[in-house]
Amino acid sequence: MFVSEVDAAAAAVFTRNHFPGAPVILGRETIRGGVLRAIAVNSKVSNVATGERGLADARRMAAAAAAALGTSADRVLVSSTGVIGIPLPIEKIERGLSGIASDLVDDPLVGAEGIMTTDSHPKALSLSVGDATITWVAKGSGMIEPNMATMLSYIMTDAEMAPPELDRILREVVDVSFNMLSVDTDTSTSDTCAILANGMAGRVDREAFLKALRTGSLRMTEMLARDGEGATKLLRATVRGAATPVEARRIAKSIVNSPLVKTMVHGADPNVGRLLMAIGKCFECTIRVGSTDAWINGQKVVHQGERTTFDEAAVRDALATDTTDILVSLGAGDGEATAFGCDLSAGYISENAAYYSS
Amino acid sequence: MFVSEVDAAAAAVFTRNHFPGAPVILGRETIRGGVLRAIAVNSKVSNVATGERGLADARRMAAAAAAALGTSADRVLVSSTGVIGIPLPIEKIERGLSGIASDLVDDPLVGAEGIMTTDSHPKALSLSVGDATITWVAKGSGMIEPNMATMLSYIMTDAEMAPPELDRILREVVDVSFNMLSVDTDTSTSDTCAILANGMAGRVDREAFLKALRTGSLRMTEMLARDGEGATKLLRATVRGAATPVEARRIAKSIVNSPLVKTMVHGADPNVGRLLMAIGKCFECTIRVGSTDAWINGQKVVHQGERTTFDEAAVRDALATDTTDILVSLGAGDGEATAFGCDLSAGYISENAAYYSS
Repeated sequence: MFVSEVDAAAAAVFTRNHFPGAPVILGRETIRGGVLRAIAVNSKVSNVATGERGLADARRMAAAAAAALGTSADRVLVSSTGVIGIPLPIEKIERGLSGIASDLVDDPLVGAEGIMTTDSHPKALSLSVGDATITWVAKGSGMIEPNMATMLSYIMTDAEMAPPELDRILREVVDVSFNMLSVDTDTSTSDTCAILANGMAGRVDREAFLKALRTGSLRMTEMLARDGEGATKLLRATVRGAATPVEARRIAKSIVNSPLVKTMVHGADPNVGRLLMAIGKCFECTIRVGSTDAWINGQKVVHQGERTTFDEAAVRDALATDTTDILVSLGAGDGEATAFGCDLSAGYISENAAYYSS
Repeated sequence: MFVSEVDAAAAAVFTRNHFPGAPVILGRETIRGGVLRAIAVNSKVSNVATGERGLADARRMAAAAAAALGTSADRVLVSSTGVIGIPLPIEKIERGLSGIASDLVDDPLVGAEGIMTTDSHPKALSLSVGDATITWVAKGSGMIEPNMATMLSYIMTDAEMAPPELDRILREVVDVSFNMLSVDTDTSTSDTCAILANGMAGRVDREAFLKALRTGSLRMTEMLARDGEGATKLLRATVRGAATPVEARRIAKSIVNSPLVKTMVHGADPNVGRLLMAIGKCFECTIRVGSTDAWINGQKVVHQGERTTFDEAAVRDALATDTTDILVSLGAGDGEATAFGCDLSAGYISENAAYYSS
């Protein structure tokens, strides 16, 4: 449970999956009020594909959390992450929530640990902006309990901001950070990113706040990517010179999503032609073979659409580091984007081939 | 080398990747004539991203094959499969082609073996239609030399058919067979499917020919899927009741491409909620939660958008067979499609993490 001392302005974005979990259906309703006091989260069972009963259970969970805090259910956002299609053990959750107010502590890492599933470590970070602080807590993309790479990301600040403004800023930042993250192309039915601003530190400069929110969200996105299921490395792909920003995003995503690029990065194997394959399979994008250049950690591997005679040992060494930066220059326009992913290892298979059964 | 005794009507379709290999660039030019005598193929080096030199090498390869057969270079389709960005060892290939006419044998399996890369077995099959025979030879999707899952598929028949008719029929059949195949979402820069009809058996009934061509192409598609890199099972997803045929194709592909569905199938783990995730992430498709049903090898696992209380042991047993058939009924229209894929195993990682280096 994440709790603000006072009611906070709030905004949230949710999964676009056509089968959203009951907490997402309820969350869309709750967030319309623009005010939250708390977020209540459970793991192991995602409460997805559970019909009317699931929605009733989510409402019971919000009500129990609200009762424990002395607030109303419409000020509590609930999230669930875990197996799809299993009913929530709602009595157990209600028992757990009762009296939880006295257990709250002042350390985001405690909450970050509480929402972990396959994450190898709890994920939280804080940044200052003026007199205010912004704190991020997130889980996901490592999938020990992985019906999906559910990303739950909660941002809390004591800066003062009206809900509509908060909503605009959140969407702007999520667009370049969490929405550019992909571990395995599978879109969860539970993804949620919410921000609470309770105003206790007063107003801060809008631009400074936006900048801090972007910086921290990018850092958290990289943290999630690096801890992707079975991942050993962060894979970052930046595309410049695309015909449009939308095409830049699509091509950058195509690179971090390609199993053959991901295995190349995993094995530090300088099989760089795969980069061209991953760019070239974006059929609907403007790609000019003769103006396409690419670099891996600063080593130029493609020049005007042809593989260069690069130093193989140097590229192998570059690929062996814990972060692989791929830069592509398309020469087709001004579109630019960066996508965040990870390598693909046998660990991904073993964690996902028997989750339900183990 | 695949050779017809006489000039054959011919049609071909090629990769849509923006970085097609030199043989594909040349092949598009060659096939415009609508007549072929032979197909010459090499493996290990794909002749992609090799610029002007690559195109000149592909022309030399066609010329050398033509000289060996006493025909002209514009009657020879060349294909190359292997690492991207490495120059073709053209002198070695020219030496190999010289005198090859006397080595030709009357067994498609010999040619099928000759074009193998990571395939675990040669792939060829024949069907009769009237007095004519249709023979398929293909490689791909198993990727021992895998810059990509290059699919090369050649179809030869002694039925008589004019090139424009052959082209129409080929596209119609490829659309429901090879184009619905996905091992790992990565689109090769070399994919080629060509058909030669030399007319030596005379005309056959058009409908019978189309039916035989579809049957054999589907069978070959399944053979390729089942032999996908690291695959242990065939995964077949049929979507019915989609709003349009295009949406049916997209959703069927989403299922066979989902790493979480593929690992579920690999582990025979009845984590069936993942099916809904894979359907629901087709954001632009019409999905009605309450009318969505799904079956795995005949076991109903989703009813009206909710997980059923299915017999877990039975579903586990169904998933443990060598073919997993997923059927989805959307209740949104008449669109129908079937996609072909395979499970995802640690073998995929090990084969692809060090191809170039090993």
